[in-house]
Amino acid sequence: MTPKLNVVPFVSVDHMMKLVLSIGIERFLLELCAYVEDDFRRWESFDKVARVAAHSPDGVIELMPTSDGAAYGFKYVNGHPKNTRDGRQTVTAFGVLADVANGYPVLFTEMTILTALRTAATSAVAARHLAPKGARTMAIIGNGAQAEFQALAMKALIGVDRLRLYDIDRAASEKCRRNLQGFGFDIAICDGTEEAVQGAEIVTTVTADKQNATILTDNLVGAGIHINAVGGDCPGKTELQAAILRRADIFVEYPPQTRIEGEIQQLPSDHPVTELWRVIVGDVQGRTDGRQITLFDSVGFATEDFSALRYVRDKLAGTAFYEELDLLADPDDPRDLFGMLLRAAA
Amino acid sequence: MTPKLNVVPFVSVDHMMKLVLSIGIERFLLELCAYVEDDFRRWESFDKVARVAAHSPDGVIELMPTSDGAAYGFKYVNGHPKNTRDGRQTVTAFGVLADVANGYPVLFTEMTILTALRTAATSAVAARHLAPKGARTMAIIGNGAQAEFQALAMKALIGVDRLRLYDIDRAASEKCRRNLQGFGFDIAICDGTEEAVQGAEIVTTVTADKQNATILTDNLVGAGIHINAVGGDCPGKTELQAAILRRADIFVEYPPQTRIEGEIQQLPSDHPVTELWRVIVGDVQGRTDGRQITLFDSVGFATEDFSALRYVRDKLAGTAFYEELDLLADPDDPRDLFGMLLRAAA
Repeated sequence: MTPKLNVVPFVSVDHMMKLVLSIGIERFLLELCAYVEDDFRRWESFDKVARVAAHSPDGVIELMPTSDGAAYGFKYVNGHPKNTRDGRQTVTAFGVLADVANGYPVLFTEMTILTALRTAATSAVAARHLAPKGARTMAIIGNGAQAEFQALAMKALIGVDRLRLYDIDRAASEKCRRNLQGFGFDIAICDGTEEAVQGAEIVTTVTADKQNATILTDNLVGAGIHINAVGGDCPGKTELQAAILRRADIFVEYPPQTRIEGEIQQLPSDHPVTELWRVIVGDVQGRTDGRQITLFDSVGFATEDFSALRYVRDKLAGTAFYEELDLLADPDDPRDLFGMLLRAAA
Repeated sequence: MTPKLNVVPFVSVDHMMKLVLSIGIERFLLELCAYVEDDFRRWESFDKVARVAAHSPDGVIELMPTSDGAAYGFKYVNGHPKNTRDGRQTVTAFGVLADVANGYPVLFTEMTILTALRTAATSAVAARHLAPKGARTMAIIGNGAQAEFQALAMKALIGVDRLRLYDIDRAASEKCRRNLQGFGFDIAICDGTEEAVQGAEIVTTVTADKQNATILTDNLVGAGIHINAVGGDCPGKTELQAAILRRADIFVEYPPQTRIEGEIQQLPSDHPVTELWRVIVGDVQGRTDGRQITLFDSVGFATEDFSALRYVRDKLAGTAFYEELDLLADPDDPRDLFGMLLRAAA
């Protein structure tokens, strides 16, 4: 009999930061990339469903569940672009990992920080298979909460070490450069998208407005680059001019979700796309020639959160970076829930 | 600026028990019935979706979200009938209430106990509209974790005070009788379903096996009774012989979900059913004559959990029955999530 059936380990924001720092941000990202890639490799063993979204005028609240038959994970995540006006995060998240055999949660954790990490890890995994070999220069358009994570994952996994930053608010770019000091990047802050993409082999777009925006226009996209489109992840929220999509080979996570939420919501529903997992397992070639434009139309899929939850659970063992929550009723006799309540009065 | 944007109130199992006992179980149920009924009255204002279920050989894990446009709620709940063998609950649950305007959670709570309470409250609300007027005698078939809650809600809301208990394990019935001592019931333990239903105006079936069972056969169902079918709530999990369904007027929560999960999964998909909310708002008459058999084919719907989350949030104010979880990352500058992480190292 397992002791303390009522208890679920909980990783607070503070504990998550301590866990990440104790491992090291770059090593954390590198190891997380391996978990993400492993789960893409066994894509077919997952129970997959497009996330369940509740849209409102100001944003969206989503539940993202998946299971590999042994473990079950889900994430709660919101997206509210106006939140920063009153000091809140655009995106916050938390998640749960559970045992499929008995339905009991085994981990409850903050996922605001973890989502930024897993999104960056997924971008890096995609870039490893799609970006030009030996790419070292990345433009980052949008220098908000996720920019540094994207940069570090690309550095850790594929060696990107030159950044060209652009944000409509220069203070965001300055913040990004300041935060990345000491991580070994050569960083240029640019005055516009056109300047930022010059010489970049990878262009990451990671902006937050909930609207059909044109962060990147077709004329700025040269042959041979890889576009890592992170910010278009919601119906009505896109970043790329549609003409770019028609020139690019498009790679996606889970087509039923990406057709609704990704850049390709701008295209007919039968426009050809390639599932990223097929490239990772080797069914399909990713980059085929030096002039090809590859696009990872990233919206974020439940398996990536599952990978992150698995990784955190595995790394948590033997650490003090969690507390125990009294979350599950555990009467002496499982049929005597009411009796437990009565006895609590005594 | 709201202080402590990182914090979400958490109601543990221990705190939930203390909250329920401080209010009083019967008053809690009565007040919860009012919240449940209020939300059925404004049924059309809810964003409704059948729950998202992950089935496995041993059970199911479900997410049940809904929103009224101002608040958003969801529940995580499992159903694993074999769990009691190793001391676990068949059903455990937890839930979250959030603010639609910014997506931030405002309550995280255990819902194993709360689910038993809200299921009972919903049964009582349905019975008030469907059971014979002045009904005082209820048979309860299945005397496990939910039986006492069902009994007390029926007593609090409509005055049921005579119970006829039957369970295949007599020890469960004894446990139920023992727990309900002092609540003012006249209780008979019966040797079988046939004996239990004698003289009962309401028959509640609340068993846990995940299979198509026949807890109640057609020959035992007399004219004029109300059947409160609680245990059939999963594909392949039913309690009533199909012939009963053909004689009864059937009332359901949310037809798209009940057609899959309820007793009516045994019937053609166009078999007529009435939505309970229509009876509550007065669009449709519930019980029309004294010989009619009414059936509440209860599977549990997200709005009921939403009602329970709202109620707990409202009652929690000014109490000490919660703790504060550091769940949401809250950097000084919302765009500086990475900087917060870096500064945590200092």
